[in-house]
Amino acid sequence: MKLFFALKTISLASQIALEEAGADYEVIPVDLQAGEQRSEKHLALNPLGRVPVLVVAGKSLTETPAILSYISRRFPESQLHPEAEMDIARMESFNSYLCSTVHIAHSHRMRGYRWADDVAAIESMRKKVPQTMSECFGLIERNLFSGPWVLGSRYSLSDPYLFTMASWLEGDGVDIRKFPLIQDHYQRMSERPAVKRAIAKADAALGAAARDAQL
Amino acid sequence: MKLFFALKTISLASQIALEEAGADYEVIPVDLQAGEQRSEKHLALNPLGRVPVLVVAGKSLTETPAILSYISRRFPESQLHPEAEMDIARMESFNSYLCSTVHIAHSHRMRGYRWADDVAAIESMRKKVPQTMSECFGLIERNLFSGPWVLGSRYSLSDPYLFTMASWLEGDGVDIRKFPLIQDHYQRMSERPAVKRAIAKADAALGAAARDAQL
Repeated sequence: MKLFFALKTISLASQIALEEAGADYEVIPVDLQAGEQRSEKHLALNPLGRVPVLVVAGKSLTETPAILSYISRRFPESQLHPEAEMDIARMESFNSYLCSTVHIAHSHRMRGYRWADDVAAIESMRKKVPQTMSECFGLIERNLFSGPWVLGSRYSLSDPYLFTMASWLEGDGVDIRKFPLIQDHYQRMSERPAVKRAIAKADAALGAAARDAQL
Repeated sequence: MKLFFALKTISLASQIALEEAGADYEVIPVDLQAGEQRSEKHLALNPLGRVPVLVVAGKSLTETPAILSYISRRFPESQLHPEAEMDIARMESFNSYLCSTVHIAHSHRMRGYRWADDVAAIESMRKKVPQTMSECFGLIERNLFSGPWVLGSRYSLSDPYLFTMASWLEGDGVDIRKFPLIQDHYQRMSERPAVKRAIAKADAALGAAARDAQL
C-alpha cells in the first residue's frame, strides 16, 4: 500500500490508522505548495487533485472516511471500529460530521477561492474561521465526545481523525484550552506510539524528498 | 424507526434507502422555513439542528452517509452495498465526495451565512454555485460514474444519494442535460417504485402536517 500525503493535511489521520493497524505501507509526499496535486500524474490517482490517496494493489482509494473504514476492515485484529451496529453507525456519523462540517469550516481559511471569486469575499470567509471552528469544537466537546476516547472507553477511527483536526486549531486562531476534553484527548493522542511513528515516517519522507530536490 | 425529514433536502436519500430495504418506518416533517430545526425538541434529537435524523429504538442517528450505511447493514437482504472490500470502499468514497464536496457546493447558494457574515460575500458565494455544481457533476460524469448505476451493474446506496443531489441541479442553475449519464440515471431513478413510494409518503406526511396546522 502507498499513501500519498501532505504535511498539515487530513492525510495524517489515515497514516495514524495505518500505523495503529500495523500495516506495511509506504508514504509518498505530494508538494501542495508546488501544485503537484494538479499534476497529470496525481490527477490520474485522484481526479479531485487532493490528498490523501491510498493506493492498494494499483487501485486508488480517496476520501478520508472511506480510507479509514477500509483500513479497519482490512485489519480487523486492530479493532479500530466498535462491534455493535449502532456504535459503528455512531462512529461513521462522527467521522461524517468531521468531514463535511469541521473540515469545511477549516477550508474556508485557505481555500475560500473554491466558493467565491472576489478577494473581499474570500477575506470575509477567512475572518469567520475562528468562530466556525470554535462552534464545531464546542459542539464536539459538549455533545459528541464521550471520553476518554471519542466513542467512550474504546479507541476507534474517530480518534486519529479528531486529533488531526485538533492540530489545526492553533493555525485557525482557536485556543484548544477552551475545550478541556479535546485538549486532554490531543495530549494522549500525541503520546501514542502509532502517532509518533506516523509523524516520524512522514518527516523522513519529506526530508528525503527535499534532499532529492537539491541534488 | 422514525425519519425526521424536510422537503428538497438530502433526507430524501435516506428515505429512498428505507423504501428499497422494505423497512417499516414513519416520516416526520421538520419545518425548516419556520425554524423548527432549531427548536429545543429538534436539537435534543440532533444538536446540529439539521435533517435527516433517523431515530432507532429511541437513539438518534445523523449524517446521511452513516444513516445509509446503517440501513444497508440492518437490512442485508436488500443488498444495498457491494460485496468486495474495495467495492464497499469505492461506494463509501463516492458517498463521502457527495457529502463533503457536492453538498457543500450546493449549500453555498442558500446557507452562505454559515461561512461569512457580510451580505456581499454571501451574494458572491451564491453566484459561484452554478459553476461549482457543474464542476462537481462534470467530474462525476467523467470520472466517478460507472453506469448504468453509480458503481456499475449493481444498484447501491450511492444511487439514491446521487439522485437526490441531481434533483437540486435545476434550482442551482445547472442544466442536467450537460451530463447525459447522470440525466439517464436520474430518469431511471425517478421510475423506481421505491423512489415513487418515498416521495408519495413524504408528500402525505407534509399534507397531514399542513392540515393539522390549519385546525
